[in-house]
Formats: sequence, structure tokens, C-alpha cells
Amino acid sequence: MYVEKINQPADIKKLTIEQLNVLRDEIRDIILEKVSKYGGHVGPDLGMIEATIAMHYVFDSPIDKIVFDVSHQSFAHKILTGRREGFINNTVSEYTNPNESPHDFFIMGHTAPAVSMCCGLAKGRDLQNQKHNVIAIIGDGAMSGGEAYEGFNNASQIGSNLIIVVNDNQWSIAENHGGLYKNLKELRESNGASPCNFFKALDLDYVYLDKGNDIAALIDIFQKVKDCDHPIVVHINTLKGKGFELAIKHEEEYHYKPPFDLKTGNPLQDMSNMENYEEITGAYLQAKMKENPALMALTSATPSVIDFTPDIRQKVGQQFMDVGIAEEHAVAFSSGVAKSGAKAVYPVFGTFLQRSFDQLSEDLSMQNNPAVVLVFLTGVYGIPDQSHQCFFDIIEISNIPNMVYLAPICKQEYLAMLDWAVEQHQHPVAIRVPTDGVHSMEVEFEKDYSQLNKFKVMKPGKQVAIVAVGSFFSLGQQVAALLEKQGMSPTLVSPRYLSGVDTDMLDELCQEHQLVVTLEDGIVEGGYGQKIAGYYGPSGMKVKNYGFQKVFVDRYNAQDLMKEQGVNAEQIADDILNNLL
Amino acid sequence: MYVEKINQPADIKKLTIEQLNVLRDEIRDIILEKVSKYGGHVGPDLGMIEATIAMHYVFDSPIDKIVFDVSHQSFAHKILTGRREGFINNTVSEYTNPNESPHDFFIMGHTAPAVSMCCGLAKGRDLQNQKHNVIAIIGDGAMSGGEAYEGFNNASQIGSNLIIVVNDNQWSIAENHGGLYKNLKELRESNGASPCNFFKALDLDYVYLDKGNDIAALIDIFQKVKDCDHPIVVHINTLKGKGFELAIKHEEEYHYKPPFDLKTGNPLQDMSNMENYEEITGAYLQAKMKENPALMALTSATPSVIDFTPDIRQKVGQQFMDVGIAEEHAVAFSSGVAKSGAKAVYPVFGTFLQRSFDQLSEDLSMQNNPAVVLVFLTGVYGIPDQSHQCFFDIIEISNIPNMVYLAPICKQEYLAMLDWAVEQHQHPVAIRVPTDGVHSMEVEFEKDYSQLNKFKVMKPGKQVAIVAVGSFFSLGQQVAALLEKQGMSPTLVSPRYLSGVDTDMLDELCQEHQLVVTLEDGIVEGGYGQKIAGYYGPSGMKVKNYGFQKVFVDRYNAQDLMKEQGVNAEQIADDILNNLL
Repeated sequence: MYVEKINQPADIKKLTIEQLNVLRDEIRDIILEKVSKYGGHVGPDLGMIEATIAMHYVFDSPIDKIVFDVSHQSFAHKILTGRREGFINNTVSEYTNPNESPHDFFIMGHTAPAVSMCCGLAKGRDLQNQKHNVIAIIGDGAMSGGEAYEGFNNASQIGSNLIIVVNDNQWSIAENHGGLYKNLKELRESNGASPCNFFKALDLDYVYLDKGNDIAALIDIFQKVKDCDHPIVVHINTLKGKGFELAIKHEEEYHYKPPFDLKTGNPLQDMSNMENYEEITGAYLQAKMKENPALMALTSATPSVIDFTPDIRQKVGQQFMDVGIAEEHAVAFSSGVAKSGAKAVYPVFGTFLQRSFDQLSEDLSMQNNPAVVLVFLTGVYGIPDQSHQCFFDIIEISNIPNMVYLAPICKQEYLAMLDWAVEQHQHPVAIRVPTDGVHSMEVEFEKDYSQLNKFKVMKPGKQVAIVAVGSFFSLGQQVAALLEKQGMSPTLVSPRYLSGVDTDMLDELCQEHQLVVTLEDGIVEGGYGQKIAGYYGPSGMKVKNYGFQKVFVDRYNAQDLMKEQGVNAEQIADDILNNLL
Repeated sequence: MYVEKINQPADIKKLTIEQLNVLRDEIRDIILEKVSKYGGHVGPDLGMIEATIAMHYVFDSPIDKIVFDVSHQSFAHKILTGRREGFINNTVSEYTNPNESPHDFFIMGHTAPAVSMCCGLAKGRDLQNQKHNVIAIIGDGAMSGGEAYEGFNNASQIGSNLIIVVNDNQWSIAENHGGLYKNLKELRESNGASPCNFFKALDLDYVYLDKGNDIAALIDIFQKVKDCDHPIVVHINTLKGKGFELAIKHEEEYHYKPPFDLKTGNPLQDMSNMENYEEITGAYLQAKMKENPALMALTSATPSVIDFTPDIRQKVGQQFMDVGIAEEHAVAFSSGVAKSGAKAVYPVFGTFLQRSFDQLSEDLSMQNNPAVVLVFLTGVYGIPDQSHQCFFDIIEISNIPNMVYLAPICKQEYLAMLDWAVEQHQHPVAIRVPTDGVHSMEVEFEKDYSQLNKFKVMKPGKQVAIVAVGSFFSLGQQVAALLEKQGMSPTLVSPRYLSGVDTDMLDELCQEHQLVVTLEDGIVEGGYGQKIAGYYGPSGMKVKNYGFQKVFVDRYNAQDLMKEQGVNAEQIADDILNNLL
């Protein structure tokens, strides 16, 4: 096997085209073996094997800097840069990481920054009078993002070597959305010759390669642009899922896939009977859309976040829209829809909503337009990779004036809050979708949440009050149970509103409590619990805030991380009993 | 005078072209009179009078929705929609505001959201089966912003009426930067016929008008696109500063200008002898760039933030770059420069840095690249308009892992921190540039800030400790003085680091203090003081956090707002003496 002899990119320079083609097949097998076993990105990586081989054949990494946008398409790169074993054993990340290899330059998991960061690398090189190639690889899907555009628009200013490889596989996570994609199609169909050219309109030099999965052709084009003295776009036409029929047929499903059987594509673990908030939300929205033709949902390239499969998307028609990887647009657009008197619901992964801090503030909340944002996969049970870590949403959302940020504790309350949010016309509302599994509670939940910042006492008690936020309410229950075993009778509170505190109730708690502990599934600093600590500051009430430390944590196990950081029922109960009372 | 008879847009529909031209001159006089007296945007508004008249002549506002991006070019619109007196007397805002008039749809002060918001208005209209025109007006400068691009890229998806007027005056705040501007030039020079067309590349219909300051021609083109059944771009070539020679000659200076003499252009108040942090920073950077050729500064369309006039820009050459209104790119780019081993300093108005929350986190801090961000005009002494309010930067910046956010209290400390930030290679560093005027202190300031999160006791004392952040250190001094008058001897602390607390010192304070008060120039919720309240939560220490409420405040006077919200030396001292001890 050739792949076993490749320990650094220099090793592939000795191979012939035929040998490189064999190497390609070997890499494909390794990738398929690995992602089918552990789950991971499939299609994006299969389409980029040839280009990655060709780049490492032509350029001299790490002197020449190859930067993958999003970097979930960097598997072949990892295999070729001394991380084959780590990749196979799943001990290296799905994303590039300079701590793993000198061939990586950035940790990159969010879409679109690569061109901007490469502009920076190129400019820094020039300021230091160095000579080498800087190569950004960015997908067509990523080009729907504003940051990518800002990078492309600024690239011509660099005025020296900068090679931007546009990996055009005609797909985002789902199908592409946006006017740009018609131009990319024109360019593909005209073999790059169409006079109307998005890249040239941004003053960039441009070459096109139709055979984006042909190693010889790729080597040829990269050799032509190597050491180029100005920014140039290399637009290559690739096939997402190349070499694996299932991924080619089912592009969206195979963008990212949990462990699966390589022959049938069937999941190794049958999750079909497990309730999840994606389906619950999708079903609610579909039913509600039937009632209200002025209700719409929009997603930013992840319709799966509400289980809107292609079938459902077709069925709901004009009441659904995908805007591409454009979270800024999504929020501003939702605000416009709300202003018109219609209603927009924007479900989004919390980590990506970080893109929209200014839009949530200026475009939505300052206008006080009643759009609804559903924030998925926040906190410790979200995506356990530092590049997708979402421990910061409470800070981001709950401190914006006018915004109402709700934290339901179970399915019933989530649906009640969602329905209220959709029906009301007073506030922009965000809901932190629970992440601690779908469970039901035998409790009467309010239908109306217009009286803001009112806590709900779930279990009255005394001495210690536990204010447990959203998905950490179950942790609060565990802590309470442990304290009860010790003969205590703690009060258990769900604050429900992350965007404010219930000062009446906080005052009331002073009567029969000496300690208030807060539990939140996010970082403590700047978080929800500190609002309560701040309120109680001048009083004699003791407060202790539990949550996560302000650090990036990579590829963690939730239970381990919680233990490590003391956010664990036993440790908290112990702390209360032994240190705080 | 015609203008006196215009109380609503319908009134102008009765006038002839000649009369409209007279009306235009009258409006220009009103604008010049007003901005020269009170200060304000000059060039952007003078260039848009004709187009605004023509739009109101052709469309039926507010049934048809006219939305100005940034909206500092909406003066003629305000005058024509019943707000002439308010405009003259400076009692209406510089920006559009639905609370002022039904002819306004959004409060808009940040650049670039108009197209996205109009996509939302149009979609909401369609969902409700309404018929009217939706018109976005966006400047060429704004088109450097990623959010604008996301809007343009999504516009074709709307598939029904949406008119996007591109007001191309060939300027941003300073000159334009980005490859796009070459294409706009090609389009202007070919009278819109160039086959390479940025807008068409985004699948948008397109018409061009060279005479963008000719009312008759504008009426003609707007009549042609009115009721259009699909999205269309109307690209108009306008002259920034039209009708006022000084503004045409000095575009950058007259983008926004403090009160000035209409004949000479001289400022009514001579500020030339007043020290300011823009010049101080600019002078420091110029000197440092000479020493270090691998140091660069970049700005996002506001080189004036470091007083980099066109002369200086030319002098420093490759060591300066303006990236257009592209704050996302600016942060990612800075990270790339830092990664290369060179150094980038990015000075920016705090309100606009809100655009870069995700970039500060993912692209910069997760990489731990040592770029430097200088955050200007934060807090109550920043820009006193809700659309530019910057009370949220501490929340945004200080809770990001790895980021060091510094708050100097005077000129000497600012320069010491700036120099350390530029010289070090360990951390991404942001500095909150003081806003309480330039003043010096007879104190020895450290040169090395690498020992993170160490407070500085500026005056030791007992009983009460005042932790006064950055620009509010002077407020802390005032509070201390008032307490001293009452025979107390408070401790005065500058925390210096907004991104962490000095737990050793906080523990130490417990010995001789019963109360710690925090003063910060930002909102209390999620802010710096709450970190201290959180830390002291389990202890017996009383803490009181002073700062601003979580609300948008418009066109405020700093002293009044501080009084209103109890963030005032007398009120705080009184509170301490009477309620807290």
C-alpha cells in the first residue's frame, strides 16, 4: 500500500500519476472505514481527495500554507500529513488544528473565514519579506456567508501571491441557496468562460477546471498557479461523495452521518424510535403553518435542525426558506418578516448564531420585532468539539435589551413556550431548546409567558434554593434529591427567563433561605447565575454559581467534563453540605 | 417656498419637474443649515436629495416601503415625510425610526442590513397576499459588508417585487476598498452594459442610471421598475456632497462633520488643541511602524479612528490597510497576520465590533493569535444614539476564552498597555480606549501586563473598596472624595483586566472591608462587576454593582443619563453611606 509509506507530503512527490490514483483509492477506503465506524463528514471529504493529493504534490507544505475553510473536508490532508493512524483511530479531530500538526494553521469549524485568514497570512508574509504560497480552500456552500464575501472582496487588495481554491461540489450541507449559484453553474457550463463572473467582478484573476477529481489535471492547474504573483481563484468542479454511490445519491444525508453500515448505509444504532426536538419542532411548525399561512420557518443551511427533509420542504412550499450559511441575513430577514405582520421562526445551532450578535441586537431587538429564534445544541450536551462549542449563548442573547430568552425544562414547557412565542406580537423571543433528552413532566405549564421574568417554583422548601436553568433543571433535581437524603428540604426553581431575574421571588427567598445556588449549562462568567449574584450582592444572601469555566474544550465527554469542572450532582451537593452552609 | 407645503409625500406628486428642482434646492439649504449648526452627516445626504424626491414622487409611502440602509442619508426623506420642523430643530434623529414616522420601518444606524430586512418585508407581504413595492436603498460603501452580500445573494430567492436602489457615490466614509469597486466603475463607465456584473452574477435583474442626480431621469427609471414582479437592482450614479463645493472637494471630511461655518468650512468650535486618543494612537503606531516593518494597522472604513489622514496613509504605505465596512474580515485577517508572525493592530468603534463576536471568538481567540484590537467610543461617552450605543462591549469581549481585555485609566497607562500588547506574542489583546477625555496621572504604570488579571490598588484604605473600571476610574475618584469628606477612607482599585478578576486581591480585601462597589461604563447585566459579585457570592462580603440598565437609549445626554440611572458620584456615595453600610 502506498498510503502506508506516506508520512509527510514530500513522500507523495515521488509517486507517478498511476500510483497517485491508487493512493487516492486507498485514502478513500480509509475515510469510508473510519467515518462508517465513528460517524463523521462523508461527502465533503470524498470529493476532495484528488485535489488534496494534487495540492500536496505541487506545493511544499508547511512552507506553503494550505488552509481549509470549515476544515471538515481535510481528512485526506490529515492522512497525508502524518496523522493516518490518529485519523483511523479517531484520536485526531475532524478539523484542522495547529496543535496536531505544523501542516495546519488554524482550528476551523465555522464556515467562511479561510479567505480572510489567508489574506492575513499573505499580508504577514509580505510584511516580513518572505516568499511562499498561501492557499485557501473554500467550498461553494461557504460562499453564501458574508464573511467569505468580505474575504473575497478584500483579496484583490493583497496584490501578491494568494491562491483561492473554490471547491464547487454544487452542494452546501443541503442544496445551495442564493443567486450566486446560478453564476457558478454558468461558469461550469461555459468551462469558466462566461463573461459574467462573480470572481472577476471582485477583481480577481480566475481559472477553471472542470475535471476537479482528476489528479493529473489538478496537478497541472496547481503547477500553473504556483508562485503566482497576485491573487487568483482556481475554480474546480468536484463531485461530493466521489467514489461512493450512496453518498452521491443522498448528498444531504451523507454530508455528515452517524456510524453506518458501509454496504447498506443503514445506521449502526437505530435512533428512529428516539424522540428528539428536531422532529418535535418540525411537526409543531408544520401543523401551525397549516393554521396560519403567514407563518414561515427559515434555516441557514441546516433544514435538518427541524427535520425538514426534502419532502417536507416541498410540502410546506413558500412557508419555508433556506438562506444558505448566512446567519446575519437570517436574523435581519426574520426581523423584516415580523415587521410586515407575518411571523418568522428561525431555528439554528447555537454555535452558528454567534455570527449574529449584532443582528440580534441592532436588526432585531432594537426594532422590537416579534420574530422567534430557536437555539439548538447549546451547552455541554451540544457539539463536543471546541470549534462548535456553544457555552456562550446565554451571554450573547440574554443581555440584549428587549430580547426575551426562554429556557424550558421539558417537552411540554418547550411546546408551550414555542406556541406562545409564535402567537405573540410583543417581543423578539429566543428559546434555548432543551438538550438533556426529550422528557415529559407531570406538571401544569403556563400557556402565556407575557409576564416577563417570573420564576417558577417547582418544589418549595427552605434553607437552600436551587435555581436550575433549562437543560440543567434535571441536574437541579439530582442535587435536590441528594440534599433530601441528608434530611434537607431544598427549594427547586426553574427561572424560565434567561433575560432577567424575578426580583420579587429573590426577595421572598430571603425569608427562609440562607443559600441560593444557580446551575447553568454555559460558562459562569457573564452568565445567568451572576445576574442573581449581582442582585443579592448588597444583601446577606449567600450565592454560589455553578456552570463551566471560560475555556475552549475540545472533543470532550460531557460527563467527564462536568466532573472535571465540578458541575456534577454529587460534587455540588457535597459542596453545599460541606462548604457553603 | 415649496418645501413648506410638503407635509407628506403625496404633496410632492402635484409638483412639476421645475418645481421639484426648486424643492431640491430648498431641501439642500435646509440640510446645510442644519448640519452646519448642529453637526451631522453632510455628503451622503446632499447626494441623495434628488433620488429621495423621485422615489416619493413615484412610490406611495408608507404603503410602498422605502428602507434606507444606515439611514444617515435619510434627511431629505425626513423633510418630505412631515418632519421638517423636527429636522431643522434637531429634535428628530439622524436615523430612520418607526417611532418618529409611519414612513420609517426600522431604526437603522449600522451598515448593510437593508437588503436583508427588505427581503423579509417582501416575503412577509407575499405570505399575507398583499401588494406593494418594497424598496431598499443601499450605498456602494455598505456593499463591502458581509451582511449586505448575504442580502443580495438571497434577494433573487424572493421571486417577487423587491427594488434595490444602489446609491453609488464612489465613496464609503473614506475611499472605497475592495475588488467590487472596480466592477462598479466598469458598470458606470459602460453605462451599465459591462457583461461582467456583480449584481447579475447574483442572479438579479439590473438597470443603470448615470444621471443619479437628475430628478426627471430618476422619476423615469423608478416608474419603470415600480410594481416590478421580481427583484431588481437600480444602480444610480450619484455625487456625494452634490451642490456644496466644500463637501465635493473634501469627501471624507464632509461625510460627517461637527458644527461648521457654511462659507469657510471652519469648525465652529476649535478642537485642534484638544488632545484625543485618535491622534495619540495614530502617532504611537506611526512611530512603532518605523521601528518594526512587520507591524501594520488596519481599519474598517474609519481611518479617522486613529487619525490616519490620506497623507499619513500614503506615508505608512503597506503598513496600513483599510478593509471597507468589513469587521468580520478585519478580525479574521488580523488573526492571519498574527499567525504569520507579523503584528496587526485593528482600531475600531466598539459599536461596530459587535459584528465580529464570532470572529473574535472562533477566528482569533480560539487560535490564541496575538493580534491587537483597540475598542474606541465605548460606553456612555461614546456615540449617544441608540443605533450606535456601545454598552455591550464588556459582555461581548471579556467572556471569550484566551482574550485579554484591558481597561486603562489614563493616557500613560493606555500607552503602556498598547505597547505591551503590540510587543507580546502570547495573547489576543483588546484595549478599551479611555473615553473620559485625555488626562495624565502622576503614577508609575507597569510596562508588562503578562501577569494576567492583577488589579492595581490606586489608593489603599478600608471599609469600602471601590473597583472602578477604565473610563469610570475618574468616577471612582469622585465617589472616594465624597466618602472621604464624610471621614471615610475607601480603597480605590483599578481592575485593569476586564477578562478576569484578581481572586487573591478580592480575598485580601475581605480583611478590612465590608463592602465592594464596582463601577463600570457599560450595562451591569453580564458585565464586569457581576464577575466580582459572583466570586464573593459564597462569602459574607457585600457587593454592589453600578453601571447601566439593559435598555436602548436614544439621543441622550451623558450626564443626564447617568443621573437618571443612578450612575453618578453623589448618588453612589449617598447610596453607600445610607443604604449599603
